[in-house]
Amino acid sequence: MDHPHRRLNPLTNEYILVSPHRIKRPWLGQTEPLQSINLPKYDPDCYLCPGNRRSNGEQNPSYNHTFTFENDFAAVLPPPLPSPPPPPHPFLTCQPIHGACDVVVFHPRHDLTLSDLPLHDIESVIDEWTRIYQMRGAEQGIKYVQIFENKGAMMGCSNPHPHAQIWSLSVVPTIAAVELESLIKYSLSHTRWRPCLLCEYAHVELKLQTRVVVLNQSWVAVVPWWATWPFELIVLPYRRHIPCLSDLDVAEKAALADIIARVSRCFDNLFSCSFPYSMGVHQQPIPAQNSTIDVAHIHLHFDPPLLRSATVRKFLVGFELMAEAQRDLTPEEAAVRLRSCSEGLPNVT
Amino acid sequence: MDHPHRRLNPLTNEYILVSPHRIKRPWLGQTEPLQSINLPKYDPDCYLCPGNRRSNGEQNPSYNHTFTFENDFAAVLPPPLPSPPPPPHPFLTCQPIHGACDVVVFHPRHDLTLSDLPLHDIESVIDEWTRIYQMRGAEQGIKYVQIFENKGAMMGCSNPHPHAQIWSLSVVPTIAAVELESLIKYSLSHTRWRPCLLCEYAHVELKLQTRVVVLNQSWVAVVPWWATWPFELIVLPYRRHIPCLSDLDVAEKAALADIIARVSRCFDNLFSCSFPYSMGVHQQPIPAQNSTIDVAHIHLHFDPPLLRSATVRKFLVGFELMAEAQRDLTPEEAAVRLRSCSEGLPNVT
Ligand SMILES: [Zn+2]
Ligand SMILES: [Zn+2]
Repeated sequence: MDHPHRRLNPLTNEYILVSPHRIKRPWLGQTEPLQSINLPKYDPDCYLCPGNRRSNGEQNPSYNHTFTFENDFAAVLPPPLPSPPPPPHPFLTCQPIHGACDVVVFHPRHDLTLSDLPLHDIESVIDEWTRIYQMRGAEQGIKYVQIFENKGAMMGCSNPHPHAQIWSLSVVPTIAAVELESLIKYSLSHTRWRPCLLCEYAHVELKLQTRVVVLNQSWVAVVPWWATWPFELIVLPYRRHIPCLSDLDVAEKAALADIIARVSRCFDNLFSCSFPYSMGVHQQPIPAQNSTIDVAHIHLHFDPPLLRSATVRKFLVGFELMAEAQRDLTPEEAAVRLRSCSEGLPNVT
Repeated sequence: MDHPHRRLNPLTNEYILVSPHRIKRPWLGQTEPLQSINLPKYDPDCYLCPGNRRSNGEQNPSYNHTFTFENDFAAVLPPPLPSPPPPPHPFLTCQPIHGACDVVVFHPRHDLTLSDLPLHDIESVIDEWTRIYQMRGAEQGIKYVQIFENKGAMMGCSNPHPHAQIWSLSVVPTIAAVELESLIKYSLSHTRWRPCLLCEYAHVELKLQTRVVVLNQSWVAVVPWWATWPFELIVLPYRRHIPCLSDLDVAEKAALADIIARVSRCFDNLFSCSFPYSMGVHQQPIPAQNSTIDVAHIHLHFDPPLLRSATVRKFLVGFELMAEAQRDLTPEEAAVRLRSCSEGLPNVT
């Protein structure tokens, strides 16, 4: 694997070009400003801090754990929507979409990320994600609930106060739909039993260990074989098939909080900075009545943009926008570096 | 179309979420440093300027038009490559790839972009692209020749001296393969004639004019119905079906140079800056012997990252990385703004 080669992402059916021989290329490109890490515990100008006013004039409560509100600039709106006019050509069809956009603030403290919060506070965040997933999923026409976090100015995040967004939609969005299609196809590939692509993948990685970064009693974090981002991670439950947040038992929820905390600290340690990333939870779409879409296997994607240090980012440009994802550092080397920043692989068997 | 809706990209079969009501959202995010535009005509430290030495010690000739050399840090290598070891599991299969990476410098002048070059110099660039497409396409096992340009530090481009890269590969890369599959499917949708998706799309846009930005006697530049980037453009020949650069006649080549120049100036005018973008040429894969892959329709994608000004970029993060592309500004509004910066739509019929 020292030579250029391609790897297939079985979730998206897209290839990535890996160029391990090129890792010694000198860096001549842009560097980013280093983010300040001296944040106050409370910022009077932050629209997420307790007691402050948001741009629509509403005042945040003085909350103690999580705090959820509807985004004042939601990308989708509640129903009913006017039906779109008939298109002048099939190419120009507007597909209607409705839904809601919620913001989940993790904690009253302006300065505490998932690396810093006590485990029970991270469990409160997971509880809140689960509550919204169920509440929005019960609303009319909602088909998918997308939980994601944008962390760091490098990810375009305008506010460092730790929070996630949850967009609940009347459609299954493109990437979730593509992954789900791959899971369905894989499950149908064996007629006698119904294998899960991600259960199987987790087992393969646990056996080999080469790409495993963090492991606990229920979850594993690996740099996937097909990683696009230099230090991309996928976090999977590996002991049993788990479609969604609602299916987690108490121990699995505690273990999810644990692996989120350990992944975050591992990232922060890597370049000694508050590590920027986009995180997303992929899980079961909202099942229609009489339907059982239990083929989904819950997992978290962490896509961090950093490449060589806290100030050098990877750009998805040029060949990657026009042709195919590409990386120089192999996922195996990324895993070695991340493991050296983790708190050790516990011997869980 | 004032309400949130989704649009389908028929080339990739992916949706984009459009949220036109959200365009008044205040901007609180990161801004980028404004790039200096006072570049010297010659920079003694530039590895692309005539007569200078590159990092491998080679000296550039004192060229007068274009200058092409093999990238000193190529992402792919020439054959033969060792065959990869048998994978421990089908998920972990390495696909071998070989090829070559060329750099095409547009002009000896360090400071002249495609906006500034006389048309005959842009024609020389197109001639050189065509020559490499044919030369590399004749090499053993090459299946695709991907021409692309990364312009501007915001696109991670480390050198402002105008140049493109050409990666010739023993595989058809992911995005070109997906687009090609859509073109083939569309062509097979009518059994009696073989319609071209992009010929048809160009005709629809020319009839409606709403998304057309620049037009000349052979080519049209439109903000596609499904644009992901705020001011994304697709440049298409609309008079006849043209699979690749080799098929352009003299007038079509001159018209391509013309529309590239006008698109570049239009971009630069929009925010009064040297507009950053990634550009890529999609065209016919290298046909195998006895094969006629003439279903491809040559087109150029321009993907610029700028959103509101020369210093505010769009980030592809969060929801977009995890779920689906999303935009606030509609493609129709983007086209209005771009048209106001162009040199007028000539009356070509
Ligand atoms: Zn996923
Ligand atoms: Zn294309």
